[in-house]
Amino acid sequence: MSALPPFEFDEKILGQGAEISRRLDQLRLENFPPDAKKTLRRFPMSEVAHYLGISPNNLKRLHLEGKGPEPLIAAAGRRFYTAEQMMELRHYLDKNGRSDAKKYVPFRKPGEKLQVVAVVNFKGGSGKTTTAAHLAQHLALTGHRVLVVDLDPQASLSALHGFQPELDGNPSLYDAIRYDDKRRPIADVILPTNFPLLEIIPANLELQEFEFDTPLSMQTSNEGKRFYSRLGRSLAEVDERFDVVVIDCPPQLGFLTLTALTASTSVLVTVHPQMLDLMSMSQFLLMLGNFVKSIREKGAPVKIDWLRYLITRFEPTDVPQTRMLGFMQTVLAEELLKNPMLKSTAISDAGLTKQTLYEVERKSFSRDTYDRAIEALDAVNFEVQGLIHRAWGRM
Amino acid sequence: MSALPPFEFDEKILGQGAEISRRLDQLRLENFPPDAKKTLRRFPMSEVAHYLGISPNNLKRLHLEGKGPEPLIAAAGRRFYTAEQMMELRHYLDKNGRSDAKKYVPFRKPGEKLQVVAVVNFKGGSGKTTTAAHLAQHLALTGHRVLVVDLDPQASLSALHGFQPELDGNPSLYDAIRYDDKRRPIADVILPTNFPLLEIIPANLELQEFEFDTPLSMQTSNEGKRFYSRLGRSLAEVDERFDVVVIDCPPQLGFLTLTALTASTSVLVTVHPQMLDLMSMSQFLLMLGNFVKSIREKGAPVKIDWLRYLITRFEPTDVPQTRMLGFMQTVLAEELLKNPMLKSTAISDAGLTKQTLYEVERKSFSRDTYDRAIEALDAVNFEVQGLIHRAWGRM
Repeated sequence: MSALPPFEFDEKILGQGAEISRRLDQLRLENFPPDAKKTLRRFPMSEVAHYLGISPNNLKRLHLEGKGPEPLIAAAGRRFYTAEQMMELRHYLDKNGRSDAKKYVPFRKPGEKLQVVAVVNFKGGSGKTTTAAHLAQHLALTGHRVLVVDLDPQASLSALHGFQPELDGNPSLYDAIRYDDKRRPIADVILPTNFPLLEIIPANLELQEFEFDTPLSMQTSNEGKRFYSRLGRSLAEVDERFDVVVIDCPPQLGFLTLTALTASTSVLVTVHPQMLDLMSMSQFLLMLGNFVKSIREKGAPVKIDWLRYLITRFEPTDVPQTRMLGFMQTVLAEELLKNPMLKSTAISDAGLTKQTLYEVERKSFSRDTYDRAIEALDAVNFEVQGLIHRAWGRM
Repeated sequence: MSALPPFEFDEKILGQGAEISRRLDQLRLENFPPDAKKTLRRFPMSEVAHYLGISPNNLKRLHLEGKGPEPLIAAAGRRFYTAEQMMELRHYLDKNGRSDAKKYVPFRKPGEKLQVVAVVNFKGGSGKTTTAAHLAQHLALTGHRVLVVDLDPQASLSALHGFQPELDGNPSLYDAIRYDDKRRPIADVILPTNFPLLEIIPANLELQEFEFDTPLSMQTSNEGKRFYSRLGRSLAEVDERFDVVVIDCPPQLGFLTLTALTASTSVLVTVHPQMLDLMSMSQFLLMLGNFVKSIREKGAPVKIDWLRYLITRFEPTDVPQTRMLGFMQTVLAEELLKNPMLKSTAISDAGLTKQTLYEVERKSFSRDTYDRAIEALDAVNFEVQGLIHRAWGRM
């Protein structure tokens, strides 16, 4: 065998990237009919009651009394509601129930400011995208008006929502924060998802341009010098439309991350409980802290209501991981979310068809696997929801 | 409970980053005596024979005949050699053996060019650092003169080698590639490790500065316009000292990654076999390809000898993962390394004390766990070593 013949790296990987992308798209077409829009399943009564925060018996009585939307009735009398019907139920309960106003429709009241949650981590594989996607969907299912922003040029969160930047040519936040005259209002780049109440700004590769444009713009314009305010100012244009914004930040400490943090009211740091992950997290906290400090010295402090660390992909039977969890509990105390997110094959399985656990049908999984995962997810998401409501002064 | 009181984000995380870092250091001090330098265990005869590529019986006979270095003899007559003695054995065998010259000392011969292997991935958690660390150590254990470069500001690979940038104030490659007059020769930033034949350029947070300096320098100087040649030119200064350079690239597509790729003779892409990871990989291949193409159009083609994809953290019993593996085998064919790297708790466990699997003692693990992991690692690393030797025209 002779020496390997050298080849042009760019030609090779452009070909391979295109081929992998084409084949992944084939896979997608095998799983979804062509031109199919992402739809959402119906939710069984028990699940609807859970998200509404009422008992299944109450919900059943409501239906028997002919009140609220008419569910689909399947075999054995099981009742199923669409996500839209869940919303209708909320409004019905709010209007006709005996409890406090706004209990079932948790939209913001005057004086409660838009909550912007940045999901960050600096080590990939920490479950950032999974966390952001499930949090945003959970907030929508529990009645909040949510905007989820994919700021990672890798666009994994967009993919989960059925956007494929390389094929669909979707816009990204870059269109709304770029420095030149091609800039568009943020409303133009907000797209609907298959969840009522949940809208998205998807990502694409162009986002990376912001990292290259900003240092140049800083030299030549005031716009560039105030790069950190670009997302905040864009969000202000749509403030009234949403209760919560969830931002999936890129796993790097660049200008996109800094503009996201400056616009945020709270920060969720995802971390996988392993030594190397913790070490790099501490490094990056220091690095990020210094960047934010320099922005504060320019007169733009990052004031936040809460900061929490979320343990992800936790395996309770893994001894080194439990040691690391104990370590974090000692060091971070109350800033560690009480509920860790468990590692789950159900989530990976769902990812195969670009779905979250809130989208898949429970019956396609072994009950145990599904229930364990959804229970862990719900615990995390209700805990974060509690923080959001506390920031509004409720509770 | 009242509304959460807002606080300054930078102050909070600077405090927490420092505290986590301090506590992690305490953990380290509990595991290692203060001022301890990282040392290396002794290797049992079977392992030494494996790395040398001779039979244990031959090695035993050599010792019984009083030839080569004198091993430590432990209980039950078991023989142990230091890593330095393994090198001595190589030179002894090369001089006295009957086989082809250079079989045991695989140093480069005239005409064989320095091999520079970039380990890249764009999605974190893909096992990049673990791969780079074990590959570099394996190449050193099999007799190659290796330089490992940590280009990730998160410095995980440096940490594995006992460097703690936040405490030790070690240099990084930034000192050798910066644009101002503080630039130092690359030889100044190369440090020894606990492995003979293995040297390191550790990382620190300053590396990130290169991302901010470069776009500015591109506007004002020829040095900046030719940023992509900075690592290659630095490596040329130490070309004679090494056989292989392994670069752990940062998980982002910035100027550090581009200068690493321009200096490389081969590329190893690590990828965890899951849908979202594959999707982001295809996206980034396209993005990277376009960047490299633009560099080629400026007259600096990236010519490489080989490109391979390495499946990492593979769990053979995980059905979605095996499906994704099958997919990659179909699409990438011969560019997928034959041996995937298995997920291993032994590697995580070793990481707890900042060690690789080549450093820990087999007896501290359950044999099965250890043996399965080391077998998978060796298979991957010998396969890569084969590619390096083929690029030299050997085999």
